[in-house]
Amino acid sequence: MYFGPPGNTLVIVVSPPPDRPGLPARRVTIADIARAAGVSIAVVSYAVNGRPGVSAATRERVLRIAEEYRWQPSAAARSMHTGPRAVGLVVSTAAGGVSSASSFLDLVTAIQDVFGKHGYALLLKVVESVDAAVATYRTWWAERRFDVMIVTDVLSQDPRVEALRALRAPAVVVGAPAAAQGLTSVHLDDAEAFGRVASYLIGLGHRDVAVVTGQPELHRTQVRVAALARMLKDAGGSLLRMTTDAGPEEAAAATRQLLTSPVPPSVIVYDSDQMALAALDVARRLGVEVPWDLSILAASDSALCRLSTPALTALPSPLRELGTAVGDAVLAVLNGQSATSHVVPVGGLAIRGSTGPLARRTKQ
Amino acid sequence: MYFGPPGNTLVIVVSPPPDRPGLPARRVTIADIARAAGVSIAVVSYAVNGRPGVSAATRERVLRIAEEYRWQPSAAARSMHTGPRAVGLVVSTAAGGVSSASSFLDLVTAIQDVFGKHGYALLLKVVESVDAAVATYRTWWAERRFDVMIVTDVLSQDPRVEALRALRAPAVVVGAPAAAQGLTSVHLDDAEAFGRVASYLIGLGHRDVAVVTGQPELHRTQVRVAALARMLKDAGGSLLRMTTDAGPEEAAAATRQLLTSPVPPSVIVYDSDQMALAALDVARRLGVEVPWDLSILAASDSALCRLSTPALTALPSPLRELGTAVGDAVLAVLNGQSATSHVVPVGGLAIRGSTGPLARRTKQ
Repeated sequence: MYFGPPGNTLVIVVSPPPDRPGLPARRVTIADIARAAGVSIAVVSYAVNGRPGVSAATRERVLRIAEEYRWQPSAAARSMHTGPRAVGLVVSTAAGGVSSASSFLDLVTAIQDVFGKHGYALLLKVVESVDAAVATYRTWWAERRFDVMIVTDVLSQDPRVEALRALRAPAVVVGAPAAAQGLTSVHLDDAEAFGRVASYLIGLGHRDVAVVTGQPELHRTQVRVAALARMLKDAGGSLLRMTTDAGPEEAAAATRQLLTSPVPPSVIVYDSDQMALAALDVARRLGVEVPWDLSILAASDSALCRLSTPALTALPSPLRELGTAVGDAVLAVLNGQSATSHVVPVGGLAIRGSTGPLARRTKQ
Repeated sequence: MYFGPPGNTLVIVVSPPPDRPGLPARRVTIADIARAAGVSIAVVSYAVNGRPGVSAATRERVLRIAEEYRWQPSAAARSMHTGPRAVGLVVSTAAGGVSSASSFLDLVTAIQDVFGKHGYALLLKVVESVDAAVATYRTWWAERRFDVMIVTDVLSQDPRVEALRALRAPAVVVGAPAAAQGLTSVHLDDAEAFGRVASYLIGLGHRDVAVVTGQPELHRTQVRVAALARMLKDAGGSLLRMTTDAGPEEAAAATRQLLTSPVPPSVIVYDSDQMALAALDVARRLGVEVPWDLSILAASDSALCRLSTPALTALPSPLRELGTAVGDAVLAVLNGQSATSHVVPVGGLAIRGSTGPLARRTKQ
């Protein structure tokens, strides 16, 4: 198998390009290394893979030339043995993906910080429906494009989770175990956080609370609403719920409807900072004073919540912590661990000027 | 090469799992198909690749079983011949990536809508510096992870562009040709749009204009500021520039500084909707009335710009159109076309309540 010269002095420089002497004017291939080392392609392959059948001197020469040429075996060639080394993420804009777009990179950064160190890349696709996500899972899995799939914005009966279970594809669901159907799951403790929100509002004397949410199919939304409703019911209050597309325009419309109704709520809770900001403006235009006539609370904090007038009371949005936990879960699944579930605490409610005690001036 | 039975009636069902009869309890491999068809792996390979040496009856049986088993040749096996079929995108949060996070998915959706139809996936990494992006390019290129790299938020002297040129890696730069250094480029026509903004402001009688931008290294920022400055200078006015991290907090701080200076500007132009919203609040707190004391203009429109009080005058942010053009450019590069540059128009300025004629009440 060894066709090169017996010594280790021959180094053939292959067609040096004008600006980078010593490197061919295209991607360096195993054939370039073989030619430069004066050996066959098979010998290069043996040498770099540490397999027997090559002398130590030849191995050393091949490795030195490969180093000089900055050549590495291609991922495609290696993945024949080690798999694609990619983590999949298919974001469905129809499942609340768009509402969380501003925080998307925070989450992705934290997730990949964990598995990126192990040589895994993130394969991303944005699709318009849950069905399109399922179709992507099937194609990618058949083509061995990913090792683990991450599912975000999980629905309570999610066809994506069912599809991944049917495919027997390794997966991590960003959501509660109840929605993960036995797959590994990581979720923020929304039930606990919204229980605290309810206690805080009840303590201020509020009983008529409204919540303006994104799509009702999101499991997370259901958990939040259930936690609020349960506590308010126990305190003799009631929860009114309005659903929107999670965008600021529909949030503004819902707010207008609530505030012009015969019995307007004294508190409105919004899923996101953008929805709450839009609501703050609606209240201002209607002459409804926050927090005297109305308390407003955002379920995910941001710089704009701190900067608005009044500043918005908000729950933290610990996406870094969530992303790190998801990354750890991805690694565990890659290592063949069986399904687990992990809970990330939401953290303390930041109380600011948009919430206050029930003191409606219009009431007698 | 043919070891199976002569007929085509034998179908061996391999270890049916409890819930999906007929499918093995793991990813279906070529070995499963070979066993079920009663032929060798080589025969399956010949049959599915349409190569000679297999009878028509055998080919038909193998294809039917592969279909039943939902088996497809792996991407890894195919990529040995056809390449990785992935488009790379490394977003550097230090290069303005975070400021555009809310619109990131819009851009990505439009880009992949074009090349996704051709079977290409998007390989995404978020990094904290331009140097880390360069390191990722080198590793991914050596490992043949991508076919074309997309560079966003390009700097005027961008080490990422230089690195891709040195690697001779196919690339599309989202930015002006001046920053793309001979690589294929696609950019929004910021020079034209900001020229129109300057004309509009000059027509309203403004001469003292300030601009609050993100990082000054962004080539796009430089183009915008240059277009404003040139027109204002010609009209006998002046442009004051403040740079920030593109977040709402630093935008608010810059606004406070500008409005409390001895000669405050009559107009402030902001890079993003979030920055302009924060500024609107600062003006409100300082008792500076918009648009009577101060005009505010946002360089990227959003629903919140339409919903704020007053609504914000803004330039469109045509990310869908930009993304489609980037996707088309990626396809052209994949097809081996030499470098081109493409300009996407920004579109008409939406004039709303936050801008008006110079009518400062504090002026004599």
